[in-house]
Amino acid sequence: MVRAIIEQMPSENIIYFGDTARVPYGVKSPETISRYARQITEFLLQQKVKVLIVACNTMAAVAYGAIKALSSVPILDVVDAGARTAAAHTRNKYVGVIGTPATINSNAYTRAINAHDPEIKIFSQPCPLFVPLVEEGWLDHQVTRLTAQEYLSPAVAQNIDTLVLGCTHYPLLKPVLQEIMGNYVRLVDSAQAITEQAGELLERQNLRNHQQKPPEYRFYVTDVPFRFKEIGERFLGRALSNVTLVKW
Amino acid sequence: MVRAIIEQMPSENIIYFGDTARVPYGVKSPETISRYARQITEFLLQQKVKVLIVACNTMAAVAYGAIKALSSVPILDVVDAGARTAAAHTRNKYVGVIGTPATINSNAYTRAINAHDPEIKIFSQPCPLFVPLVEEGWLDHQVTRLTAQEYLSPAVAQNIDTLVLGCTHYPLLKPVLQEIMGNYVRLVDSAQAITEQAGELLERQNLRNHQQKPPEYRFYVTDVPFRFKEIGERFLGRALSNVTLVKW
Repeated sequence: MVRAIIEQMPSENIIYFGDTARVPYGVKSPETISRYARQITEFLLQQKVKVLIVACNTMAAVAYGAIKALSSVPILDVVDAGARTAAAHTRNKYVGVIGTPATINSNAYTRAINAHDPEIKIFSQPCPLFVPLVEEGWLDHQVTRLTAQEYLSPAVAQNIDTLVLGCTHYPLLKPVLQEIMGNYVRLVDSAQAITEQAGELLERQNLRNHQQKPPEYRFYVTDVPFRFKEIGERFLGRALSNVTLVKW
Repeated sequence: MVRAIIEQMPSENIIYFGDTARVPYGVKSPETISRYARQITEFLLQQKVKVLIVACNTMAAVAYGAIKALSSVPILDVVDAGARTAAAHTRNKYVGVIGTPATINSNAYTRAINAHDPEIKIFSQPCPLFVPLVEEGWLDHQVTRLTAQEYLSPAVAQNIDTLVLGCTHYPLLKPVLQEIMGNYVRLVDSAQAITEQAGELLERQNLRNHQQKPPEYRFYVTDVPFRFKEIGERFLGRALSNVTLVKW
């Protein structure tokens, strides 16, 4: 997500907040997720951000309302971005959505996709082991392939032509997921979708940064866990620097 | 753990604290684990407990010193209990320890086992996917078997005769682990080990509860997550009641 934004909007400053002490969110209750979301939103608003991007699918799916109630700046959320892209791309109107249990149980993707096109049939599947498998680095591993087969075989049987990767970790599993779904199924990468919409929003609201100086990237995290640098760099594709620990 | 204590010490009251909003601990940094451990210790001491059992291997391995510094009551920790049992049982003096990354990186088991017998060779292996697999309920699943094979094949090659299950989740994987290790390898269940030591401690310090009224069980949790009852009952073997949410 951050990587896509850096690559496609190279002049924008980015303040990233990663709640590394309290992840994963995907198996927590909606109440706890919303409480944490409010705390993080207040933190970022104090930093005077001009746009808030809710990059975590679980947080967007469960706590968008709680965040919107606090926010004075435009909010982009990854669920809406993914839903819009999926609705635009499906031909046979059968769309699959995979995500954490909290995301899938919220029905946020179903609502968002059907808001764009009520005729689309949506098939949802929680995939709780995908995040731990990505964090273990088993991106191309027989265990990951077998797990994905088990989770996705009902989706394959539904003849979907579009699959929304409804969690920031899942794009790292694209090769395995594409192999199992078959080449005719389009995988919607929500990071890509939201980055495009962020660009459009900045343009439309005349919020682009036109300063010539190099952009600033600040990373706030609540823990510096084991293999933090390794996992962060796997996502970011570059070395992590300017990291500040927030003790919550 | 709680189940074993309830079964073997049926007259004791139990106050359980589960930090469900912030688990898993096994991939967090020692600093964050210690901070959370202090917060929980203070909470339990306020409830006037007579003995503190550090049931989470990660917390015991990383934060025992922090807990001890705060505690005025006897502390039993699962790492010492497992280490003592393993040292007593090994014949060939080759012992394996499996646990979370935080537990294994702390070297707490190695130190504790060698404190009982410095001649024992210890082979340690972090198994970060075992907790998510247990929580997914894939206790007897091909994915779990393959994952265990990958994690344990170095331990099998070391000819260990004793394997410490250094995480409260792992005893639920006993059948798969025994199958992979072979029947001659003894699996040390730390829950069993600590329950025996808790009984001895209460006896020795004359702390047993001799009241005739039925014991009270209180469960404090920081979140009531998805499938909380299901997962809790999988561990406890009985219905969960008297659960209080602590909002941290």
